[in-house]
Amino acid sequence: MLGLAGVPLGFSFRFLDPSPDACAGEVGELVVGDYGDAGALERLADGADVVTYEFENVPVAAAAAVGVVPGTVALEEGQDRLREKQLFRRLGIPTPMFGTVEQTGLPAIVKTRRLGYDGKGQRRADRAEPLADGTLAEELVPFDRELSIVAVRGRDGETRFWPAAENVHGEGILRISRAPAADAPQAAAEAIAATLLDELDYVGVLAVELFEVGGRLLANEFAPRVHNTAHWTVDGSRTSQFENHLRAILGLPLGSTEALGETVMVNLIGGIPPLAELLSLPRAHVHLYGKSPRPGRKLGHLTLVDAPEKDIERAVELASVASR
Amino acid sequence: MLGLAGVPLGFSFRFLDPSPDACAGEVGELVVGDYGDAGALERLADGADVVTYEFENVPVAAAAAVGVVPGTVALEEGQDRLREKQLFRRLGIPTPMFGTVEQTGLPAIVKTRRLGYDGKGQRRADRAEPLADGTLAEELVPFDRELSIVAVRGRDGETRFWPAAENVHGEGILRISRAPAADAPQAAAEAIAATLLDELDYVGVLAVELFEVGGRLLANEFAPRVHNTAHWTVDGSRTSQFENHLRAILGLPLGSTEALGETVMVNLIGGIPPLAELLSLPRAHVHLYGKSPRPGRKLGHLTLVDAPEKDIERAVELASVASR
Repeated sequence: MLGLAGVPLGFSFRFLDPSPDACAGEVGELVVGDYGDAGALERLADGADVVTYEFENVPVAAAAAVGVVPGTVALEEGQDRLREKQLFRRLGIPTPMFGTVEQTGLPAIVKTRRLGYDGKGQRRADRAEPLADGTLAEELVPFDRELSIVAVRGRDGETRFWPAAENVHGEGILRISRAPAADAPQAAAEAIAATLLDELDYVGVLAVELFEVGGRLLANEFAPRVHNTAHWTVDGSRTSQFENHLRAILGLPLGSTEALGETVMVNLIGGIPPLAELLSLPRAHVHLYGKSPRPGRKLGHLTLVDAPEKDIERAVELASVASR
Repeated sequence: MLGLAGVPLGFSFRFLDPSPDACAGEVGELVVGDYGDAGALERLADGADVVTYEFENVPVAAAAAVGVVPGTVALEEGQDRLREKQLFRRLGIPTPMFGTVEQTGLPAIVKTRRLGYDGKGQRRADRAEPLADGTLAEELVPFDRELSIVAVRGRDGETRFWPAAENVHGEGILRISRAPAADAPQAAAEAIAATLLDELDYVGVLAVELFEVGGRLLANEFAPRVHNTAHWTVDGSRTSQFENHLRAILGLPLGSTEALGETVMVNLIGGIPPLAELLSLPRAHVHLYGKSPRPGRKLGHLTLVDAPEKDIERAVELASVASR
């Protein structure tokens, strides 16, 4: 999606991915190799104006070797849930209690410190237990809803925010985002993101996932990259997160983050409904990633802008049936 | 732009172009060869669900060999200005007088019957003269403005129309399109396009260029392909002409042709203004084609949706300065 956003701006892309089937190959040259493969990294960066990433588990050493923008600090902090939480705390950003089960209270969520995503590496703990190495307990927050704030910061420090999205997860995976989230504490969400972006001297797009609890916001985690909860911006905002990420890392002026209307994004997970059915949905934009189906895998998404509720319900139903 | 529209729908593309630098290569496999090259055509079509074109001067025999959609009838009629005008006349579609200079009156425009585009192969005739072989005289119409109607017709005959655009040409090349055109005779324009589409049993996107004269419409020419005067639909309509062309030729449901607002498209011809300046224009979307600059060559376009007039003026000025 970064490639699709950048080709119309006149940019050419080269991608590094361990899989020869990586869908990015549709919109640029694909270098197949492990993220740590020195030869592949060299080929990736050869002649490039800038190198970036859209997967936060790339090894920090590899990212450093090719001089990624946004730097490696955000990557290091974001790859480790303990450091991430400590950073929130140090910056005065409210976050759920974390540490040992004694520190969080029960019930708690026990998570791996590294490499967890889409609910993987997480489980609920209902009684006291010693924590395995490399894991972390977090307070189970009885949140009212999940929000996210996605921001872009330029090389000159200018920062813009898209309207906060309201997100619904199922089995640990994002299912639906609605933006702008109704009655969202936008200013408070922006303040959290701005604090983080400035501390990290960040350049590019960054997302912060938030819990809203009794009108208060708690930062759950951040992702130093373009984010699924802002995929709606491709069709629902003046400038997409992908285009603004490219503008930021290349030192170009940032585009407007204004919403065009009420947008709902529905993830297609595990299976894809028939294309003709998706395209029959008025006001739906279809985005497929060219990935082979696998249970729990994100294969695409739909975006519906200013659509009637019945069409949104139909989209959710189609996605749900196909995911089984 | 067809590739950029189709990749998110899960399609993969292969393109045939005589130039190894063809920009389509950014979004698919590029087969380099002449349009008449049998081996290249075979490679192009190998395993494809459908083959189409976006340049109406591909040889009819080549198009027939790979079974293009929309068929070859529209291509044959559209490649020859005389047959095109005769078709308009046969269908009762008003068109400027054409034939010899005696038939059109003076002054007239003398055009080559084949291979003219962007004002090439045209000149004004102010006195009686015999016409060279392969040329045609047309009445010089004192039009109030130029409009175009772009339509998409599905395999089942369903037809949808984007709002008519008002177009400004300079030195024979399209400079600016505004859509929806203010106070356009939309129903009359749609009737002309529908008559043509049904006669040709057409599948895909087709454009008709129109002169408005004293409230009447005259069809000037048609293009059996996606059209520059509908490039605004990428940013300014629910469904772009590119996506709807793909939907049509693949037998998928057509998308909404509704406009999202008032859109102005400004062509970048001969030279490209600095990217940072273009991206500084609020509400401008930048589309560059990856082509090397050459006087009179279309290198990209800007689309401004619901933008203040001063930003539109600035866009026109930037394009104008760069084109010199």
